[in-house]
Amino acid sequence: MATETDVVSDADAMRRAIALAARGLGSTSPNPVVGCVILDASGHLAGEGFHRRAGGPHAEIHALRAAGERARGGTAYVTLEPCAHTGRTGPCAQALIDAGVARVSYAVADPNPQAAGGADTLRAAGLTVSHGLLGEEAEAGNAAWLTSVRHGRPHVLWKYAATLDGRIAAADSTSRWITSAEARADVHRLRAESDAVVVGSGTARADDPHLAVRGIEGAVQPLRVVIDTEATAVKPGARVLDGAAPTLIAIAEDADAGELPEVVRLPRAGRGLDIPALLAALHERGVRSVLLEGGPALAGSFVAAGAVDKVVGYLAPVLLGAGRTALGDAGISTLGEALRLRMTETVRIGPDLRITAIPEPGPGPASEPAMNVPTKVPTTKER
Amino acid sequence: MATETDVVSDADAMRRAIALAARGLGSTSPNPVVGCVILDASGHLAGEGFHRRAGGPHAEIHALRAAGERARGGTAYVTLEPCAHTGRTGPCAQALIDAGVARVSYAVADPNPQAAGGADTLRAAGLTVSHGLLGEEAEAGNAAWLTSVRHGRPHVLWKYAATLDGRIAAADSTSRWITSAEARADVHRLRAESDAVVVGSGTARADDPHLAVRGIEGAVQPLRVVIDTEATAVKPGARVLDGAAPTLIAIAEDADAGELPEVVRLPRAGRGLDIPALLAALHERGVRSVLLEGGPALAGSFVAAGAVDKVVGYLAPVLLGAGRTALGDAGISTLGEALRLRMTETVRIGPDLRITAIPEPGPGPASEPAMNVPTKVPTTKER
Repeated sequence: MATETDVVSDADAMRRAIALAARGLGSTSPNPVVGCVILDASGHLAGEGFHRRAGGPHAEIHALRAAGERARGGTAYVTLEPCAHTGRTGPCAQALIDAGVARVSYAVADPNPQAAGGADTLRAAGLTVSHGLLGEEAEAGNAAWLTSVRHGRPHVLWKYAATLDGRIAAADSTSRWITSAEARADVHRLRAESDAVVVGSGTARADDPHLAVRGIEGAVQPLRVVIDTEATAVKPGARVLDGAAPTLIAIAEDADAGELPEVVRLPRAGRGLDIPALLAALHERGVRSVLLEGGPALAGSFVAAGAVDKVVGYLAPVLLGAGRTALGDAGISTLGEALRLRMTETVRIGPDLRITAIPEPGPGPASEPAMNVPTKVPTTKER
Repeated sequence: MATETDVVSDADAMRRAIALAARGLGSTSPNPVVGCVILDASGHLAGEGFHRRAGGPHAEIHALRAAGERARGGTAYVTLEPCAHTGRTGPCAQALIDAGVARVSYAVADPNPQAAGGADTLRAAGLTVSHGLLGEEAEAGNAAWLTSVRHGRPHVLWKYAATLDGRIAAADSTSRWITSAEARADVHRLRAESDAVVVGSGTARADDPHLAVRGIEGAVQPLRVVIDTEATAVKPGARVLDGAAPTLIAIAEDADAGELPEVVRLPRAGRGLDIPALLAALHERGVRSVLLEGGPALAGSFVAAGAVDKVVGYLAPVLLGAGRTALGDAGISTLGEALRLRMTETVRIGPDLRITAIPEPGPGPASEPAMNVPTKVPTTKER
C-alpha cells in the first residue's frame, strides 16, 4: 500500500478501502462492513478507517479522525454510500461536510431507503460526488449485508470438504481427516467472518461438533445453530452447549425441548424444518451471514430452498470410490434443473484446493423467488 | 523463446527442449518423446528438433541438421540421454560426436539397458557430459514412456468430468453436457496425446461413443479399446467400429465374439476382465499410454488394481445432489486405505476447472506392487 509520500490513485484508494472493510467481517452485524480512505488535497494518504462493530464509529469517522485538518479540500473513498440518518452515531455525510472534504467517491449505493440520501446531502452541500468505482468488488465484499437488506434474510455460504470424487467420508464413515490442517484452519476464518454457523442433527449426532472459532485472535464468536427438528440430537453435555459462544437449537413447533437451553420453534417442512422460516428467525436475531456447515441432507434442503448464495468447497487430492457425497437430495432430477454456478476463485490451501462459486441467475432452484421476501421491511441500517 | 541474437541460458535451452518433446506426444510410441536444442560455441541458438514418430529421425538428428556447422564446439541439450545403439536409425551419441559438439546436457538417464550407454560413449570421445538439468520436468513430460519401460505396462491417465459434488450424471442419467465445450475440446487433446483410449461396456451401451480425436489437425488417432467382457455391448454399427481409428474389443476368454472384428480375449477378474492382463496385451501391441475414459465401475477397477498413474478431472461449477458419481467401488472401505494424490496443476478451462493429480507413494491401492512387472523384459527402445 501507499506510504504518505506517494500520490495515491483513485483505484488504489478504493481498493484499500475495500480491504479495510473486510477486516470488519463477522463483527459489524447487523451493520454492513465499510472501509474509508481519505486523500488530502494533493492526493496523498491522509487517513483511513473501517467500521469495527455495530454501535461504534463508522468508517468515515475513523478516517476523518486520522486525517484531521488534512481532510480539508481532500477526497474521501468509501465502500458504501455515506449515511444521512442519525442512528446510534451521527450521520457520516454531515461529518464529511463539516471536515471540509471536497470530493466523495463511493463504490456501492445504500439500498436501504431509511439510510440512503447521503449522496444527495453531500451534493446539496456543494461536494463533488461520484459513484461506482470498483463497485463489483465492493459489492462482493458486502455480499452478506446487501443480501440481507435486499431479501430480508441472511446471506448463506455453504462450505463443504470432500475428496476429488465428491466424498465426505469413506464407506465405513471415517472422515478424519480428508482435508489438511491448513484447510481446516481456513474454515475457522470463515466462521469468524460469519454471524452464525449452522449444522443439522446428523452432524450433531455423528461429530458432536464445537463450532466455535479457534486460533483466530480477537475473533467475534458466531452464533452456533443446530437444526434439531425432533430435539433428540443435542444432548446435555454436548460440546456445542459450552460457554465458548452463544448457541441456538432450532426444533419443530411440536417437539419436546426437554432440557435444551435456548431453542427456537419452527414449522416443519419435508424431512426437517422450514428453511425460510429458520432464516427469518435468524434475521430477526440480527444474523446477516450464515456459514452452513451441515451435512449432505441439510445442504440439499438449502439448495432446494434456493437459499445458497455462495459455495466454498475444499477439495482434497484423495479418491475413495465409496462413502457419503457432499450434497444430498436437492430436488434436482435432471441436468436441466441443476444449480449452475460461476467459479469466482480457486486457491491452493496446503495440499488441497479451495473453490469458491456463486449461483448464476437462471433455471435451477436458486432462482426461485421463494426466498426473496419483498414484503418484509428491511431492518433499519443502524450501523 | 530466444531469438538467434540472444545468448540462451542452460535452463531456457532445456525448457525449450522439453516443450519441443511434448509436441511428439501421441505419435512416437513405442518410443519416448525427445526434444533437443543446440547452442553454438557462443551460446546462441543454432538448431532444435524433436522426435516426431517411431522410425523417423531422433530429436538430436533434427537439431544437428538445423544447426549445421554451428554445432561445432557448441552444446546440445537433450531431454533424454542420447542413445548409443543402432536401431532403425543410427546412434545419436555418435552423430553428436561427428558433428563436433563439445558439451551435452541431458535431463533424464535412459532406463533401458539396451539403449543406455550414450553418456559413456560421449565421455569416451572427450565431450563434457552433464545430467539432471530440469530432470523432474523432463521426467514428467516422458511419464508414459518411462512408466512403460520401468513397469512393463502402459501409463494410465484416468480422465473424468463431474460436478462440484462429484456427479457425472443427474438422477435421470442425463449428462449432456455437464462440462463446457472448452473442456470437451481439451479431452480431444488428451486423446491425441494417448496411444489408446479405453472405455467399459457401460459407457459403450449408454453413450455409443466414437472415441476418435476430432478438431486437432495432424493428430495420430489412438487405438480405441472397449472392455466388453460378455461381448454384448458393442453391436454392429456402433460408432466405435467406424474407420476413423483402429479399434480393439477386449472380451472374456469364454465369451462369444459373434461378429466383432478385432478382439482380444482376456481372463475374467471380479465383475469384469483382469486389468493387468489387459494392460499387458496393450503393451504388447506397442501401446505406451492409455487414456481411461470409462465410467465409475471401470475407473474403480483400475484404481483397485493400482493401475492409475495420473488423474485429470474436469470440474464444472454445477451442483446436482443426486446421480452417479465419478468413481465407483475401488475396494476402499476406510479413509486409511484412500488413494492419496498430489495436485500438480489446476487450470481454468472456460467456466470449468481442470485438476491434474498424481498418486503419492504410500498406503492405498496404487502402491500395491501387482502392476509392476519386473520379470517382464522391457521392449527394446527402438526410437
